[in-house]
Amino acid sequence: MKFPVMNDVSEPVSCVSHIKVGVVGATGYTGIELLKWLFSHPNVEVAVVTARQWVGQKIADALPVLRACLPSSQKSLSFVTPDDPKLKQVDVVFFATPHGVAMNRVPELLEAGVKVVDLSADFRLKAPEIWQAWYQSPHSAVDVLDQAVYGLAEWFAEDIASAQLVANPGCYPTSIQLALWPLIQQGLIELSPIVVDAKSGVSGAGRQANVDLLAAEVTGNFKAYGVAGHRHQPEIVQGLQGCADKESDVRLTFVPHLLPMARGIESSIYVRLKAGVDVAQAHSVLDTAYLDASFVSVLPLGKVPQVKWVAGTNHCQIGLAQPKGGDMLIISSVIDNLVKGAAGQAIQNMNLMMGWPETLGLSVQPSWP
Amino acid sequence: MKFPVMNDVSEPVSCVSHIKVGVVGATGYTGIELLKWLFSHPNVEVAVVTARQWVGQKIADALPVLRACLPSSQKSLSFVTPDDPKLKQVDVVFFATPHGVAMNRVPELLEAGVKVVDLSADFRLKAPEIWQAWYQSPHSAVDVLDQAVYGLAEWFAEDIASAQLVANPGCYPTSIQLALWPLIQQGLIELSPIVVDAKSGVSGAGRQANVDLLAAEVTGNFKAYGVAGHRHQPEIVQGLQGCADKESDVRLTFVPHLLPMARGIESSIYVRLKAGVDVAQAHSVLDTAYLDASFVSVLPLGKVPQVKWVAGTNHCQIGLAQPKGGDMLIISSVIDNLVKGAAGQAIQNMNLMMGWPETLGLSVQPSWP
Amino acid sequence: MKFPVMNDVSEPVSCVSHIKVGVVGATGYTGIELLKWLFSHPNVEVAVVTARQWVGQKIADALPVLRACLPSSQKSLSFVTPDDPKLKQVDVVFFATPHGVAMNRVPELLEAGVKVVDLSADFRLKAPEIWQAWYQSPHSAVDVLDQAVYGLAEWFAEDIASAQLVANPGCYPTSIQLALWPLIQQGLIELSPIVVDAKSGVSGAGRQANVDLLAAEVTGNFKAYGVAGHRHQPEIVQGLQGCADKESDVRLTFVPHLLPMARGIESSIYVRLKAGVDVAQAHSVLDTAYLDASFVSVLPLGKVPQVKWVAGTNHCQIGLAQPKGGDMLIISSVIDNLVKGAAGQAIQNMNLMMGWPETLGLSVQPSWP
Amino acid sequence: MKFPVMNDVSEPVSCVSHIKVGVVGATGYTGIELLKWLFSHPNVEVAVVTARQWVGQKIADALPVLRACLPSSQKSLSFVTPDDPKLKQVDVVFFATPHGVAMNRVPELLEAGVKVVDLSADFRLKAPEIWQAWYQSPHSAVDVLDQAVYGLAEWFAEDIASAQLVANPGCYPTSIQLALWPLIQQGLIELSPIVVDAKSGVSGAGRQANVDLLAAEVTGNFKAYGVAGHRHQPEIVQGLQGCADKESDVRLTFVPHLLPMARGIESSIYVRLKAGVDVAQAHSVLDTAYLDASFVSVLPLGKVPQVKWVAGTNHCQIGLAQPKGGDMLIISSVIDNLVKGAAGQAIQNMNLMMGWPETLGLSVQPSWP
Repeated sequence: MKFPVMNDVSEPVSCVSHIKVGVVGATGYTGIELLKWLFSHPNVEVAVVTARQWVGQKIADALPVLRACLPSSQKSLSFVTPDDPKLKQVDVVFFATPHGVAMNRVPELLEAGVKVVDLSADFRLKAPEIWQAWYQSPHSAVDVLDQAVYGLAEWFAEDIASAQLVANPGCYPTSIQLALWPLIQQGLIELSPIVVDAKSGVSGAGRQANVDLLAAEVTGNFKAYGVAGHRHQPEIVQGLQGCADKESDVRLTFVPHLLPMARGIESSIYVRLKAGVDVAQAHSVLDTAYLDASFVSVLPLGKVPQVKWVAGTNHCQIGLAQPKGGDMLIISSVIDNLVKGAAGQAIQNMNLMMGWPETLGLSVQPSWP
Repeated sequence: MKFPVMNDVSEPVSCVSHIKVGVVGATGYTGIELLKWLFSHPNVEVAVVTARQWVGQKIADALPVLRACLPSSQKSLSFVTPDDPKLKQVDVVFFATPHGVAMNRVPELLEAGVKVVDLSADFRLKAPEIWQAWYQSPHSAVDVLDQAVYGLAEWFAEDIASAQLVANPGCYPTSIQLALWPLIQQGLIELSPIVVDAKSGVSGAGRQANVDLLAAEVTGNFKAYGVAGHRHQPEIVQGLQGCADKESDVRLTFVPHLLPMARGIESSIYVRLKAGVDVAQAHSVLDTAYLDASFVSVLPLGKVPQVKWVAGTNHCQIGLAQPKGGDMLIISSVIDNLVKGAAGQAIQNMNLMMGWPETLGLSVQPSWP
Repeated sequence: MKFPVMNDVSEPVSCVSHIKVGVVGATGYTGIELLKWLFSHPNVEVAVVTARQWVGQKIADALPVLRACLPSSQKSLSFVTPDDPKLKQVDVVFFATPHGVAMNRVPELLEAGVKVVDLSADFRLKAPEIWQAWYQSPHSAVDVLDQAVYGLAEWFAEDIASAQLVANPGCYPTSIQLALWPLIQQGLIELSPIVVDAKSGVSGAGRQANVDLLAAEVTGNFKAYGVAGHRHQPEIVQGLQGCADKESDVRLTFVPHLLPMARGIESSIYVRLKAGVDVAQAHSVLDTAYLDASFVSVLPLGKVPQVKWVAGTNHCQIGLAQPKGGDMLIISSVIDNLVKGAAGQAIQNMNLMMGWPETLGLSVQPSWP
Repeated sequence: MKFPVMNDVSEPVSCVSHIKVGVVGATGYTGIELLKWLFSHPNVEVAVVTARQWVGQKIADALPVLRACLPSSQKSLSFVTPDDPKLKQVDVVFFATPHGVAMNRVPELLEAGVKVVDLSADFRLKAPEIWQAWYQSPHSAVDVLDQAVYGLAEWFAEDIASAQLVANPGCYPTSIQLALWPLIQQGLIELSPIVVDAKSGVSGAGRQANVDLLAAEVTGNFKAYGVAGHRHQPEIVQGLQGCADKESDVRLTFVPHLLPMARGIESSIYVRLKAGVDVAQAHSVLDTAYLDASFVSVLPLGKVPQVKWVAGTNHCQIGLAQPKGGDMLIISSVIDNLVKGAAGQAIQNMNLMMGWPETLGLSVQPSWP
């Protein structure tokens, strides 16, 4: 694997070409986040935005939060319906829809020559029967499933560069796979058991009117959820198994928790080091793997990452520790669920698909404190 | 005005008699809070609880948060419909319903000899036409409106003691009127303009599935709301005018704001001292007025109250300041919106109606930190 | 093991006798919390409170938050120095001091016939050499170490009842041991590996001026800490090993995390069920173990506990799940770190030591929402 | 007044020239925020950063949060002492120091031809005796006080463009003056009384180890502070008086409050409209005043701004309302205290001083949700 050349924040990028993009489903946190990043991307013009509930409304009226970043040239942009034909005339379409929507629209867009980045779960799982088992309905676009490239940008940059359809990874899977891939690939850890205790800010639950997500319920509170099984489980297993020795099975216990805050994911990962391996080796392997990565930092041994150090950015930070006298390796991996876990990685994938530096439009400072 | 004798926390109360109570509308934050306090009240048995959406369910199943305070004798208590005839057989019924519900049920309960504490807005305003102007529908129980005693417990304890129907004050009005009454009654401040900048935790907005109240929207955020007019405005004006010199008009500007936290209200009140009056006099008048009050503390000059000092309790704390060289008096008044601003004051009113010490069942510590 | 008879919230307790208590170290969150509960305890008079930094100050002046719960009889109580001789004249002394303080004072108090509940770490570990290894200084009261009874009230009620010195458990150890004891004792789970991913509100870090604990750093943030080894680790291992088959070693990985909220602990515990055991059996064993417990609830299968359901109370709630197809048991255990994890359990221990119902003075509602 | 031409987000800026800048005092929230923005500014190289406590340390080691935005070319940058001579060799020096520091260093820097933006209070007040009255020590740089231009960028753009020393406004004063200036200048409102109830996130209190600012104290809490007088008071009065009819005196009541969140200010301003003026006129005047402003938006009548709509950006949003039947105008003005209220406005001022578009390096999206 080779990383694309890093683009330095302070080097002005010559503006090769503007493209037109469309966003399907801009009413949720992911869709709105995507709009924010697209509006400030130097090479992109947002040409079509769909939102069933706001058809005909101007973006700045329905989403006052976007006033602060809406380019003056796009102040008159209004929402259209999801089946607007203009979607077939843009260069790239992003889906920020609930699962089950993209799979019905993507085939015709691909046929029209449009590139697609799907932020939903529709094209993440390779096996349609596994999709059906977790989403309780048959997959309706099995024909194009094979074309979909899994958009974990740090690991599939080359495939993404030539893909027409990219399945943007889930937020939890991004934080977990980035931390585990190099270790599994190089055979440093046991595949079973892998325990992941993950925690997410509440924006990860979506912008839906739901009593359980009210501020009065969530503030000052904490709980596990999805304990019996979460839909990101098969996605993580598929990814980890994909880079593992085929003869061993990945056995993953994954429990997500809800944090009383808006943004960010921390995944604490508990794995056993193989005999003879210690944390220094694990650190060295990870550090080397991401030496040239623009968006992944492996912290020095002894340092623990914090969610707010990456909040608002496309970065992932990873820390490692091995409590003395044991073979247990503890990995803490932090990302912003809406950026590296969704919209930011989608932009990164678009950049790769267009042959641009992967950091284009993604060089921002964290929102700390 | 005379305050009821204070009941000390550490004096065990001889248990005169148990009464049976009913709660109509136990699905919102106010209703649930009321249940919490009633379940731990030494003289009360909760006999009937209505909740349309949970009819037939056990309380501990629908509201797991009540497991920690549900007496074992009431573990099998289930929700019934709001029109359950058993409501007519209890001693006291509390309404924790949206406005417009209590006015339709209260007359028959009064007729059946039941005492009623209404926590909704239905019986707070004396003039039905003002009610109609702010709530956009005619008042349907004008006949019993006159019987309703306004349950600001510190000021109407005697009337409340002999009332059959008590209108429990709104949360903002409680914090504001407790601070201003003595000052207006003794003629220390100008009645116009009175500016109140009030801030409430998000539980004040109710337990309703509403995107604007989602944790992801409210956390780390702050805003004014109801700027053009809030329904607590006429209630406050009615109260303040009632204790004022009849010839002058109260002119109140009241703007509520939403705090990124669950509980508590802070009202910052800006009034002009009459010529010759200073903050020391104002402080002395307030301090004297509440010398024997169980639940209102006037802080020493120079101290500013904090919401968390009263959170979880039925207390109100008030601080005063006069910036040098001016005639402006600044008053900061803090309460817990769900306790002194709702359920706690309702219990206090029940205590007064039953002839019990007003502090009975209300002696708890604040939830700080 | 037999639980003491439950005391129902609504049963008035006849007030056998008042005792005098002292509190050493009332400047931290634990000490202040303890005062709150002691001031509202029906059988207790707080006679001596030490706080080096506030000597001579009245309690209500140094700690305005206590105004709302200070009995009128104790309004003039002032802080004294930690070596005040009056400490030897009370019935029970509580230590809410940093580690290393109680061990120097306890022997003389015991000699004076005073009962002691130590909320610090000084008497929790049975082996002085382990204490020294984790606290980097020799234990200075090895002679009385043997007398100390570990105050996990649900498991050692009988020993506590006859103890003169009780070592109040740590907050994390309480949440974890309550969940694991019955399962280990009955041999349902493997002792190795046990993975505990625990999260605590920030009050657990103490009331110390520390940039890392500032609201601007903690709000909207989340991180692991103490990854390389936390002082609660040997306490948990000692407890679990104590109830286990002596031939197997407990191997525990314990990682605490900092929650952006004030109160509460959630411990997610990952253990392997022994061959042939499933979650239903584990649930049944736990449920039976705590059937008569006043403060521990095992939730029905399928329910997950929330921190806010127990915040402000002395309760522990435990939920269990077994993801399908595996032998991994996931346990989520929640407590309030300052109550069941500190001051509340200390009161519970005092109640047991005095022969009172263990729930005396501890029957409050949770602070939800 | 004329606004500089707006620079559109999507127009790539040709990179005229790089300058070198220095930052004195990079250990507080303001200094760190400034570094974040400077590191991603296209025309700036951060050449010198002072921090007494971290001398010799690399920036990424002392401030891991900056890892995500540190350009690779500056990865080896280390902190130096505040009196490092290299400060005289850069083009612009920023002071992010406590008051009293800049006044001792600025004269020699000016003499060396360096431009200075001072984010502290040292050069904001024109009258040294007022400075002394509020800061309890004499002003030590009276000679250069006259050269200092008050950096409220929207109102003094031309003066700033030719200034060598800019006094960056305080956070509260920025939010308040931006809202009131056009109204006062055009004579629409009474100058007395003006009541401002302002609320700030806790980062405004600085990165100092202080028990009152601990997360456990601030979370779920709210309080007024500085009630007897806040140092931003004379700055606001000076500014408002400066644009007012000289014959009338501004009489301002200003009370700040502490919000349980990290970033953002909301100022609710209560003023009386002059006879014959209504909210529509006030709105029209404000809207016209900021028609071409890059960073100030006047919301349509009926809309209320939210802090999170501007958090992380250099924007100010202003909403207006006039409760019916009265002459009271309510203005709500929101900014991010660390950006438009500090570091962002400092960058904006540097841009103006260098003749660059004022938006250069400031075009980011808000951190919502």
